[in-house]
Order: sequence, then structure tokens, then C-alpha cells
Amino acid sequence: MGKVVLIGAGPGAADLITVRGARILAQADVVLYDALAGQELLDLCPNAIKVPVGKRHGQRSTAQAAINRLLVEYAQSHALVVRLKGGDPMLFGRADEELAALERAGIDVAVVPGITTAFAAAAATLQPLTKRGIARSVAFFTSSSAPELPDTTQLPDSDTLIQYMGGQKALQTAELLLAQGRPPELPVIIVENCSLPDQRIERLTLAGLTQGLSDRSGPVLVMIGAAFADRTAN
Amino acid sequence: MGKVVLIGAGPGAADLITVRGARILAQADVVLYDALAGQELLDLCPNAIKVPVGKRHGQRSTAQAAINRLLVEYAQSHALVVRLKGGDPMLFGRADEELAALERAGIDVAVVPGITTAFAAAAATLQPLTKRGIARSVAFFTSSSAPELPDTTQLPDSDTLIQYMGGQKALQTAELLLAQGRPPELPVIIVENCSLPDQRIERLTLAGLTQGLSDRSGPVLVMIGAAFADRTAN
Repeated sequence: MGKVVLIGAGPGAADLITVRGARILAQADVVLYDALAGQELLDLCPNAIKVPVGKRHGQRSTAQAAINRLLVEYAQSHALVVRLKGGDPMLFGRADEELAALERAGIDVAVVPGITTAFAAAAATLQPLTKRGIARSVAFFTSSSAPELPDTTQLPDSDTLIQYMGGQKALQTAELLLAQGRPPELPVIIVENCSLPDQRIERLTLAGLTQGLSDRSGPVLVMIGAAFADRTAN
Repeated sequence: MGKVVLIGAGPGAADLITVRGARILAQADVVLYDALAGQELLDLCPNAIKVPVGKRHGQRSTAQAAINRLLVEYAQSHALVVRLKGGDPMLFGRADEELAALERAGIDVAVVPGITTAFAAAAATLQPLTKRGIARSVAFFTSSSAPELPDTTQLPDSDTLIQYMGGQKALQTAELLLAQGRPPELPVIIVENCSLPDQRIERLTLAGLTQGLSDRSGPVLVMIGAAFADRTAN
């Protein structure tokens, strides 16, 4: 009976995986990977059996139940199975379902954390998520279309707000925040394809965000808050 | 004129730094490091001038203004200066002040993200921060004693709450959450010295947290939310 390690691949750039993650990935017998894992990351495990389970460019992703089953089956026949997940495995990643399936099957599991996109975006934009006296808390949420995930009436309340998979749903977020009394000039940063060669950064305001987002092809992170004011304007 | 790179060291374990962070650290001429950076991390830059600027065991830390000044001065005489910060540089790390000082001095800066303790704690406890249908948002806040930082009347609102540097301030957080109507049996996990050999994990409830924390020597992360229920009880 093998072991399964859930590894956070980080935001996309292959060298933003942790040293531990890269080391375990290199030893893996089997790697089940998301669409977010690029070729450079897969080059870190040249000898592993590589099983794509992610969604990309309109192709259907493997259903979560099938991924859970694959993890169990591979672990029953291979010593080290890696589940390589974009960002950090424990944030918006359905890790709970994978861990539950593995635990039910009596398979040993471990998790290696990864850089979630919000931190890579803060680094890329040189904009801290918190700022002394200005932004003392930060909340992460998502705008998945799955019905049990939050609609914009369930926004968390925090000085800094980070919406994953923002897209057009971010317009509703902006409307709601304005209705809650946040100022129209509140800074907003949109980061697309964070840490990758085609990374795109756009700076606007809360009022500007209600006017729409330009066309985007990659995953979009929406960062909202006073912490994102232009430092040179201070 | 040199360059300064703020690098996130991660939660403590040396192999939880990113591959990029480790590579740049190995090339550094000067490294200014926090108390959180252990010897194994410093072994990654054997040839660098190492300048401790953190607080530890009651010793006074270097004042932030002095750190800013040191960064500028070292960058004026060395090619690559690394500011190695615990966790991620852009969360609760006063990065804004360091970046502002460097930008004012016309010094080139970059940031390499790091694993913040919350994600390492989620990995260590095998407890995701979000859970489908149960916890759809997560907020990070701190309980610094600095007067401009949050008192417990300014808690963020989110399904999952993570209090950094929790300590005795977490008792007030628990009282406030109970007053706000969160259930007494809400799961709480306390993680001390996350990712280090002396890591300690304690599971309790919101009601239990109001009764106090046992003595602790290291930094304490307090994780609160329905996401942290025991998976085997599902």
C-alpha cells in the first residue's frame, strides 16, 4: 500500500513550488495533476506516470469522485502517489473530499503547502495585502458557479478582500461593496495568469470595476482594498 | 547600486521555502533575517553577510526605521541584498514600509512569496481552510498589541477565521464570536511552532478557548471554524 501526498504547485511559475514539494514530486511514481500545472512543473517528475485530471479550454475535467477513486487505486499499486494541485491544496481545492476518500481506504496521506495566487499577486504587484494602520485583515473568497458556493450576498467582511476566479462575478462584488458603503475610489487590482509569462496586471477602482472587465482568457484574481493604493501617492 | 529582494522564508521548516527563494538566497551578498529564520535556512546562504534584525526571547528587535535604513545602505554597496521574512513578506510583515524606503532611495526591489503559517498549519493538521458547502471564505487577522492594530471589536467576518500571534488575545476573540452568535461547539485548532520539530497541535472548541490556553513558548496560530470539524465524525 502506497502513500499519497497532496502538493501545492503554487500559482503557476515552476520555481514557486516549495523545495519540499519539488523533492517529493521528483520521487513520485504517479502524479495526478490539474490543468494549472504547466510543462516545467511536470518536468520535475520525468519518470512518473502522469495523469491529467484538470479542466482546460472547455474540455471537461475529471469529476471529483473519479479523482478520489483514481488516487485510491494508484496508491494501492504504487509506493508514492502525488496529487499536484494549483496554488495551495487546502484553499478552494476540494482537498477535504480527497483526504476523506484516502482516509476511508486506510491510505497514508500528507500535505505539502503551496503559494496561493493571492501571495504571488501581492509579490508581483509589490502591493502588501495588509498595511499598518490601513488594512489589518484580509479575506479570501471565490465566485464558483456551483450553487452551494457563495453568492455575493455572502461576502466576507475584511479590510482587504481577495476574490478568486473573479471574472464577471467580480462586477456583482463591486456593486455590493458600494451598496455597503465602501468608497467608489477604493483601489482594485486585477491579476490574470499570475506568475506566468503572460501575466497581466490592471489597476482600477471599485466604481470602475462595476463598468466591466476587459476580455480575459486566464484565471483572474481580484484584489480590493485601501492597501492597494499607489504607494508613490502617499 | 544593488537590488533588494524580499523573500518569504515560510513557516519555519527550511524546505518550505520556495525553489526561487532558495536559489536567490544562495546568491545573496547580504541577508537581513528575522528571528523566525532558523539555522537550516541560514545554511542556504553560507557566503552571505548575515544581519539579524528580529526579536527573540525578550531581546529587542531592530526598529523598523533602522531595518529600512540598513536595507538601503547595504543595497548601496552590495549587488544582491535579501530581506528574509518569516511566512509571506506581504502579510502582517510591514513590507510596505521597507518597499517605500527602497523605492524612495531609487533601489530596485522584487518580492518572492512564501508559505504563510495558516497554510502550513492546514497541511500539518490535514484540515482544509475551506470546505465545500461548509466554509466558503477565510480571513486572516492578527492580535498585535500595537494600538493601531485591531482590537477584538474589529474582527473580520468570514466562515473560517485565522488569528496570527493569537496567544491570550484569542480568548477575547472567542468571547466576541460567542456574543456574535457563533456556536460554543465551533471547532478551534491551536498550532504552535508550526512545521518545526517542536510543533504542537491542540484541538478545542470556541467555548473551551474562553477558558484559556495552556502555557506556550512559540508563536501560536488560532484556527476557528466549522471547516475544522473532525473529518471522521462526518
